[in-house]
Amino acid sequence: MEKIKKITLSEKEMPTQWYNITADLPNAPLPMLNPKTKQPATPEDLLPIFAEELVKQEFSTSPFIDIPEEVQDLYRLWRPTPLVRAYALEKALDTPAHIYFKNESTSMAGSHKPNTAIPQAYYNHRQGIRRLTTETGGGQWGSALSFAAKHFGLELTVFMVRVSYEQKPYRKLMMQTWGAEVIPSPSRRTATGRKILHETPDTPGSLGTAVSEAVEMAISDPGTNYAIGSVMNHVLLHQTVIGEEALKQMEKAEEMPDVVIGCFGGGSNFAGIAFPFLRQKLTGKHNLRVVAVEPLSCPKLTQGTFRYDFGDTVGLTPLLPMYTLGHTFTPASIHAGGLRYHGAGIATSQLLKDGYIEAASVPQTETFQTGVLFARTEGIIPAPESAHAIAQAIREAKRAKEEGKQRTILFNLSGHGLVDLYAYEQYFAGKLPS
Amino acid sequence: MEKIKKITLSEKEMPTQWYNITADLPNAPLPMLNPKTKQPATPEDLLPIFAEELVKQEFSTSPFIDIPEEVQDLYRLWRPTPLVRAYALEKALDTPAHIYFKNESTSMAGSHKPNTAIPQAYYNHRQGIRRLTTETGGGQWGSALSFAAKHFGLELTVFMVRVSYEQKPYRKLMMQTWGAEVIPSPSRRTATGRKILHETPDTPGSLGTAVSEAVEMAISDPGTNYAIGSVMNHVLLHQTVIGEEALKQMEKAEEMPDVVIGCFGGGSNFAGIAFPFLRQKLTGKHNLRVVAVEPLSCPKLTQGTFRYDFGDTVGLTPLLPMYTLGHTFTPASIHAGGLRYHGAGIATSQLLKDGYIEAASVPQTETFQTGVLFARTEGIIPAPESAHAIAQAIREAKRAKEEGKQRTILFNLSGHGLVDLYAYEQYFAGKLPS
Repeated sequence: MEKIKKITLSEKEMPTQWYNITADLPNAPLPMLNPKTKQPATPEDLLPIFAEELVKQEFSTSPFIDIPEEVQDLYRLWRPTPLVRAYALEKALDTPAHIYFKNESTSMAGSHKPNTAIPQAYYNHRQGIRRLTTETGGGQWGSALSFAAKHFGLELTVFMVRVSYEQKPYRKLMMQTWGAEVIPSPSRRTATGRKILHETPDTPGSLGTAVSEAVEMAISDPGTNYAIGSVMNHVLLHQTVIGEEALKQMEKAEEMPDVVIGCFGGGSNFAGIAFPFLRQKLTGKHNLRVVAVEPLSCPKLTQGTFRYDFGDTVGLTPLLPMYTLGHTFTPASIHAGGLRYHGAGIATSQLLKDGYIEAASVPQTETFQTGVLFARTEGIIPAPESAHAIAQAIREAKRAKEEGKQRTILFNLSGHGLVDLYAYEQYFAGKLPS
Repeated sequence: MEKIKKITLSEKEMPTQWYNITADLPNAPLPMLNPKTKQPATPEDLLPIFAEELVKQEFSTSPFIDIPEEVQDLYRLWRPTPLVRAYALEKALDTPAHIYFKNESTSMAGSHKPNTAIPQAYYNHRQGIRRLTTETGGGQWGSALSFAAKHFGLELTVFMVRVSYEQKPYRKLMMQTWGAEVIPSPSRRTATGRKILHETPDTPGSLGTAVSEAVEMAISDPGTNYAIGSVMNHVLLHQTVIGEEALKQMEKAEEMPDVVIGCFGGGSNFAGIAFPFLRQKLTGKHNLRVVAVEPLSCPKLTQGTFRYDFGDTVGLTPLLPMYTLGHTFTPASIHAGGLRYHGAGIATSQLLKDGYIEAASVPQTETFQTGVLFARTEGIIPAPESAHAIAQAIREAKRAKEEGKQRTILFNLSGHGLVDLYAYEQYFAGKLPS
């Protein structure tokens, strides 16, 4: 076909259903467990803090779930996103490989997170919920949810890890511009926060603490629910709009990927790009490799163990059967904040255990070398998280060159790095641990 | 037509020519003058610092100029940009007006500046130039040129006003990530800089000084040229790709604007959106109003005088016949750094003098109120500069409501504000002068 840089879809071609991979898993995963009873968790366990429709989705075994019209309307603010052929990167690598990326950095928040923020705000609003709470570390998730909550007239309280609150003023400002209340965590607003501040007044905070504060606030008020940015099934479900679009776009490009790559934190952008392609694999339509890429410093997929573990640090969530480094694991303070999570979630863990996907890990310096190369070729300065996916794509492209084989590579560019430039500064200054 | 949020074009529909409004001006503007001889400036006056092809464009009277294939290829990294119907903003204003905006924030640099950075780097590269110099205040222009220069293998030295260099680390980091050398101005690298540092070692610097340093370096080395981000004809020419796309997109939307709006600094984004629509007006095809919007604190169009003046503060450039506040005018330190320029350039000034366009001014607080409203409705946090155009669009939409008339409004969203969030912080803190 003719040389086209961006394979686009019209708004009419936007997917109208999310894909639920649970329906197609060859081996059904073990159930979540209620941490008190050690019995399989039920929808009732989740209803105190999540909207009913989201709980239904969490337990659903239907392969496709309709995207509500109101959500599609908001997706149209930036979706469908372009699928881009990385000609300039290919040239720089002198590789026979065809490299494609799905550009999820084009959303208002600069990442894929609005794909789930919008439906979560929508379902809570429709149920009459007045306020949402959440936590944020780096701030990608908090900023995405801020816009979504404002749109549906919901109040939003974001507990932002104190050290991030102080070091990442731009993310905080994005949230405030969209109308959210942003509170450094630990805070005096919750019993958890007050206890921690009493014991360690100078603590920099942690994501685990912030989760606990957000959940505590949601439990204590019937008009308040909690929203989560990754790990859970319903979140991964919403992100599959990425891969459903990419499938159509690869068809337009008259190619199918030999390998699909996503960076991996809690799994949401990875599932978003990968699950629709995995459907092709699981249903025998198209064979391909799928690679989840994690930081070397937080290697749950490549070095973790498969067992029941909590989703949060404190131990409030149901127990999840997954690859984990242990819920008290403290990863190094790398710049890819979105990938500093101890566990892999249920569906991804089952797929890895059963050999349907692979995992790879990348040291931090390689990701920043990659980020700079990508910026200077394709123009976009990538988020440190996304640079992990690019780094793996480059490894695959180099291997293709060594083997003298054409190979079609697809990765997800989950976000841009314009609000994370301080990380590049550290890299240029030679201050980054690998 | 059906309710579509974004009117898009395929890469095949991208314009292949820029539009040169000089060919269609009813009254030919006065010539630029050589400041020493007071005679009309000639191409020879400009050749020491600009590429030949750019000088030809500067003096061209052809209505259309072909966009080189290599430039089109790079435009495809993000172009065509979407034309967006601002349904959510219309709803918030409860107006019968149809509001459209051209979204130029989708480029790698987050603004319209790459539209001219790329051809400028291309023509200089083709001519065998080794290095470019430029100045930057806010950093939009410097960051756009950094990517373009890197792509064509040119070295780039950016003189960044010292106070911005210190206060806007993210813009500096964008330039460095794309491989540019960024120097705080005044610097010890030029005679101008050394003189100023000797006299006033603690000066915060100024755009005028930075221009002088960049031009001095370009003059003193035959392999080095200077690149400019606005004001001159060839720069405005390159930006018309914006309006040419928007014309096609409005036709797809089956509407034509009653009013076209752009914010106004040196004129590049304004010309970009407005000149192709002005062609329709000047050639009698479609009547419409065109409004250039400036900050109340830098009111050259609404309160300046039409006369010959220098383009820079120091007085190195040819004398330009234009509306000006005087080349030594020091505007207040507003956050819309791109609009703090004393003069209006030749073509825009002639159009205003002859009554083909209008001008309006907006106080700073109104622009930030507007920016927050736009962020909370349409999702995009606008650059402080672009918020001036939105503010005027809102005024027009409110007037349409008062008059009970449908009216079609088009404005240019020249850039996003993600790297300018410190400005929103000042606004939220109540620290902004109007």
